[in-house]
Amino acid sequence: MSPELVPIGKVESPLTNRATAPKQGHEGAPEAWLVFDPAVLDGLEGIRTGARIIVLTWLHLARRDVLRVHPRDDLARPLEGVFNTRSSDRPNPIGLHEVEVVAVDGRRVRVRNLEAVNDTPIVDVKPVLKR
Amino acid sequence: MSPELVPIGKVESPLTNRATAPKQGHEGAPEAWLVFDPAVLDGLEGIRTGARIIVLTWLHLARRDVLRVHPRDDLARPLEGVFNTRSSDRPNPIGLHEVEVVAVDGRRVRVRNLEAVNDTPIVDVKPVLKR
Repeated sequence: MSPELVPIGKVESPLTNRATAPKQGHEGAPEAWLVFDPAVLDGLEGIRTGARIIVLTWLHLARRDVLRVHPRDDLARPLEGVFNTRSSDRPNPIGLHEVEVVAVDGRRVRVRNLEAVNDTPIVDVKPVLKR
Repeated sequence: MSPELVPIGKVESPLTNRATAPKQGHEGAPEAWLVFDPAVLDGLEGIRTGARIIVLTWLHLARRDVLRVHPRDDLARPLEGVFNTRSSDRPNPIGLHEVEVVAVDGRRVRVRNLEAVNDTPIVDVKPVLKR
């Protein structure tokens, strides 16, 4: 089984450089647009300003052959398994971004605190669950 | 771009039936084993009993051509976009499961409250971030 992801949209962001982008959304990431393909517009029904959502992206610039990293690229920290870090380098580089919706304009959804760089493919969106 | 996911392991669970499995992990899901491929063992370094992790799965039984659903399969609730629900039916059926590690035995990791059914492919694991 080798399931293929079909991108449903992409990120439009002022961030263009992976090396200088914040590592996490709450570390000073800017607002960005999620621009969805017209084909999936029905799937967005119910998403409104103020909602907290989880955006899943395909981190297309990541390396897939890395299993151990220095957390936060800090060489002073010992190597750790990628599954115990949020490194984007990993066998399946899926990005997980919890963000807040600040505007919805048809198939364009503006969100706060997204650290993904411009043109990153979006593969899924889920609501944050209230427990 | 059509990125291909490479499964890194699979779920070993007493749950075998999607229809009767809990919809969320905290709704009475049992303990389960995450059984990782030997090739990714290095990636698990640092994951220990007591850790909270996010397991990403490929929901192989899901339908990918669905964009609107009745939330929680409740026909009394109006149709909503799949991206505003946790339905497993969606264009890229990636499951997101926040679980607690209860045992680590080499490439086998036992977790609490996993609602994924037996044999579900695992595609990624990330730590829950403490803010």
